[in-house]
Amino acid sequence: MFEYTLLAQEKRARVGVFQTPHGELQTPVFAPVGTQATVKTLTPEHLKELGASLVLSNTYHLYLRPGDELVAEMGGLHQFMQWPRPMLTDSGGFQVFSMALTRKIDDDGVTFKSHIDGSTHRFTPEKSIAIQENLGADIIMAFDECSDPNNHEYSRIAMQRTHRWAERSLQAHTRADQALFGIVQGGVDADLRAQSAEFIASLPFPGIAIGGLSVGESKEEMHRSLEVVDPLLPENKPRYLMGVGTPEDLINGIARGVDIFDCVLPTRLARHHAAFSSTGRLNLMNATYKRDQRPIDESCDCYTCRTFTRAYIRHLINARELLAGTLISIHNLRALIQLVTDIRGYILEGSFESKFPGLLEKWGNNAGKQSGLPKSTL
Amino acid sequence: MFEYTLLAQEKRARVGVFQTPHGELQTPVFAPVGTQATVKTLTPEHLKELGASLVLSNTYHLYLRPGDELVAEMGGLHQFMQWPRPMLTDSGGFQVFSMALTRKIDDDGVTFKSHIDGSTHRFTPEKSIAIQENLGADIIMAFDECSDPNNHEYSRIAMQRTHRWAERSLQAHTRADQALFGIVQGGVDADLRAQSAEFIASLPFPGIAIGGLSVGESKEEMHRSLEVVDPLLPENKPRYLMGVGTPEDLINGIARGVDIFDCVLPTRLARHHAAFSSTGRLNLMNATYKRDQRPIDESCDCYTCRTFTRAYIRHLINARELLAGTLISIHNLRALIQLVTDIRGYILEGSFESKFPGLLEKWGNNAGKQSGLPKSTL
Repeated sequence: MFEYTLLAQEKRARVGVFQTPHGELQTPVFAPVGTQATVKTLTPEHLKELGASLVLSNTYHLYLRPGDELVAEMGGLHQFMQWPRPMLTDSGGFQVFSMALTRKIDDDGVTFKSHIDGSTHRFTPEKSIAIQENLGADIIMAFDECSDPNNHEYSRIAMQRTHRWAERSLQAHTRADQALFGIVQGGVDADLRAQSAEFIASLPFPGIAIGGLSVGESKEEMHRSLEVVDPLLPENKPRYLMGVGTPEDLINGIARGVDIFDCVLPTRLARHHAAFSSTGRLNLMNATYKRDQRPIDESCDCYTCRTFTRAYIRHLINARELLAGTLISIHNLRALIQLVTDIRGYILEGSFESKFPGLLEKWGNNAGKQSGLPKSTL
Repeated sequence: MFEYTLLAQEKRARVGVFQTPHGELQTPVFAPVGTQATVKTLTPEHLKELGASLVLSNTYHLYLRPGDELVAEMGGLHQFMQWPRPMLTDSGGFQVFSMALTRKIDDDGVTFKSHIDGSTHRFTPEKSIAIQENLGADIIMAFDECSDPNNHEYSRIAMQRTHRWAERSLQAHTRADQALFGIVQGGVDADLRAQSAEFIASLPFPGIAIGGLSVGESKEEMHRSLEVVDPLLPENKPRYLMGVGTPEDLINGIARGVDIFDCVLPTRLARHHAAFSSTGRLNLMNATYKRDQRPIDESCDCYTCRTFTRAYIRHLINARELLAGTLISIHNLRALIQLVTDIRGYILEGSFESKFPGLLEKWGNNAGKQSGLPKSTL
């Protein structure tokens, strides 16, 4: 179980297979995010049809609502939300730092107030692992502290704490049917990143996550951090870049050795009427699309693009119909999954490097402006 | 085209087939409502899977947004919303009376202000038919005036106007691929209802709607009105009871000769967490269901009941996840469509009369309290 087989490599870009109790993951892979045990506005049937193989859910949210013990009683997360393929839960660390109303960190753990009702709770590495064992995902995460990447001293302290918590997470973990991944931190400081990669790589984790990126640093800083970490990680373990990203980020991440990605962006953008496309990001509320009989993206094979025109989706948005969010979510997720699948094929045939500039040019206009989008997923 | 074949009759209850350009309608039939060219939160795939054969859409809403001319340019309503089976549009009359900000009726038509932006518009029978010809549904409605059922004098005036408008609607109608139905009005006054049924039945409509019920009168008044109208309508034309209803209303309506029903109730209730069931209406937000591993209705074969527990749906509601509305809408629509399909079978085998009391007892607790539900479908 949890064996990672490297099938092909082109420069740093990798193709592999990771075995889980709910089936094989063909990497590189993009995971849709189902924060509260549901990928917003989609059924599991939609997810299967658009080719999702791994779904992420959030420990912080599920602990607060409906409660990890309730999920365990209901047979675990797979059974509860009826997702039969591999699942991943995060450690709750990032959400405690980004969503909770207040938080107080000490070396043992974090005390925080729920964003839902202000009630007080405490996460430690042991508690995070216990919750994730109740949830029962195939891949779970060590409890970590995500620092402000622009604060070197804080990044050092947070990294050291993350390392101690990684050891405690390993100690606390009991379920043999879950792969516990360690998390590399260290902000955007190359020395800290290298130190963290070496330390986490020295521990017996079956996979390694790269945390604390896509949290405010520049793209160049993200790429440099990946380039520092990549050669220090063992070849036979999957690497997971947390919370990333845009089509451009996936292309760049795979080129720098990343195997697994997740991000709320495709579904969050969809609920704000924005669609990824191979000709750049579209804001489908725009009056330009009022009579546009084309699909969102003529090169996309998703249900939405096979079935509906931009004019219809624009009408749904304008009429405040929720189906718009569903249809664009299907498209945006499929776009990323198709992109990653295409790149997998390119690496297998050894053509990714030559296609890389064209891919970046084609998909580079999808980053868009993030401002104006609410941080909360609720 | 538009031939109605009566296949079986048990007392007043009828089983038939109605031919349309988009296929046969097996009657009795319940039509989900897609007010703004979408049955809220559902894809056409969901609708096909739950067995919907006829979908209603609203002339008033589509005229205002996105505009019937735009829909025509996009190939008509079937093409625009990708619904390949039969469709029905109402005349816009009822919405002008129930939704527009102001309205001024004269013998020629109605001038009203849009509920969206307060702009002024005018519907006449000719205008309603022209809009419905642009939309292109298989079944369209004559322009009518729905009265206050408790105001006899107004009911008489509105009925007379409805009769003149019925003749003008017939005159205005040009498309041979659309069945124009006349509408019987007359409030809850038996004499007016009889007079209206006789008049509308005398005109060359291929089907007849019964309007102005389920608008505030008692169940007894609704039933009596149907009993007055039923024997006066031609046997070889389908009868459509507009805007009805609950499981109980369908059972009672079919027993009184109705062939076609539509109602927003199943989808509107779903978005307010209420589910129809063969053991009575459930409010799935209730904490009772927190750990309930049963489906909404153990006797239901819908996707939601085959797949998800009450506990999961309750979690989605509690976490404000939109998927809850989708899943309950699927169930509520399937429940009504399955009920009508079952009754069709009972009539064919001649057992509806004997099953009638049991059906009413089983489904009678689903009416619930309507109060608290918003009138608007937006």
